[in-house]
Amino acid sequence: MVSNRNGAVRVITIEGNILEQNDRFARQNRAYLQARGIYTLNLLSSPGSGKTTLLVETLNRLKNEIRCAVIEGDQQTSNDAQRIAETQVPVVQINTPQSCHLDAFHVRRALEALPLDGVELLFIENVGNLICPASFDLGEAEKVTLMSITEGEDKPLKYPLAFHLANLLVLTKIDLLPYLHFDLELCKQNAWRINPGLSIIATSVYSQTGLEEWCNYLRTRVRGR
Amino acid sequence: MVSNRNGAVRVITIEGNILEQNDRFARQNRAYLQARGIYTLNLLSSPGSGKTTLLVETLNRLKNEIRCAVIEGDQQTSNDAQRIAETQVPVVQINTPQSCHLDAFHVRRALEALPLDGVELLFIENVGNLICPASFDLGEAEKVTLMSITEGEDKPLKYPLAFHLANLLVLTKIDLLPYLHFDLELCKQNAWRINPGLSIIATSVYSQTGLEEWCNYLRTRVRGR
Repeated sequence: MVSNRNGAVRVITIEGNILEQNDRFARQNRAYLQARGIYTLNLLSSPGSGKTTLLVETLNRLKNEIRCAVIEGDQQTSNDAQRIAETQVPVVQINTPQSCHLDAFHVRRALEALPLDGVELLFIENVGNLICPASFDLGEAEKVTLMSITEGEDKPLKYPLAFHLANLLVLTKIDLLPYLHFDLELCKQNAWRINPGLSIIATSVYSQTGLEEWCNYLRTRVRGR
Repeated sequence: MVSNRNGAVRVITIEGNILEQNDRFARQNRAYLQARGIYTLNLLSSPGSGKTTLLVETLNRLKNEIRCAVIEGDQQTSNDAQRIAETQVPVVQINTPQSCHLDAFHVRRALEALPLDGVELLFIENVGNLICPASFDLGEAEKVTLMSITEGEDKPLKYPLAFHLANLLVLTKIDLLPYLHFDLELCKQNAWRINPGLSIIATSVYSQTGLEEWCNYLRTRVRGR
């Protein structure tokens, strides 16, 4: 359903303009990052899936072998950037009070502000939202979608674009499996219905599950450029 | 940060037009619903917070004393409407593949499709997204925001509008409290920083916690009109 005939036409036109403009900046970001040898991941998920918690853990494991940097997107607060900063990894916070997603111009501005000398791996933690962030190319090398198993097995079917465009699905909070009515196999089948080539890693920071597998995925990405 | 000077001006203009058009439909919806004596709640939350699970439980508890109906919003699938339909309560599913939220025109179309004779309580389950749905008045009597305690205490600060505009915060999955690093009191304090008048009910469908308190809240709303 659409708003109405006039409204719909107007919205679609503007979305087209916005996405076209976004894609131009995204291409520039991609060229800039590739020229510097920086492998960039765009992390997508619902609010509260544990992106920042996983990222802090990841940075602490990788920072002595791979030079990392982080761009944090949030509608409000700089709490997440403060958590990242404690790892001593360079971070820039972008607040998007008018927007439910990061766009490529946000990232361009963040790249200007970040010390990128020697950086090999850049994480962009998108705004917590499974819908709109999937539509905006930021210039990343790949999208990674995170999903807490507390969210239910049906999320890949209900929010297909975020799962369709990702190379990897990181399931988080797998330590809660014994306490949930969650069918892990069904969740994987749902994800593969949307994206048959999707890799899936089940993780928990609290039980330290799957973290080396995730870090090895990142090591391969950085070394395999 | 904004996209750029030209882009921002254009977006803001359009948002203004869209919201103005939306508010006109919302006023019409509100008048229509009030004239029929239908008390309407707009349920907001992240994906996977348990809106549908709570709703199914609520309908089974209330349907023999209060005539209910449901409008289901999702980006894709009619899974949720099927779960509601099993309660024998009238339901209409709206899919919003182009949009990350319900708007008042979606609801107007759904109201035309729903059998509303005698209905006293209408639930609108918005698209799972803590950001954009908060900006669109649907013509409801009140917004209720749900938040799973697995999402973390900081969500009211990071997504303030959804918490600022709600009368009630329903915390879900409270049965998981022993297994999480979640400070319930801090979460409440964060919510009250954004909205000092916010009521809060902690619930779990699995442990059957807080459900009578929630149903009594609804009974009071319907009978107190």
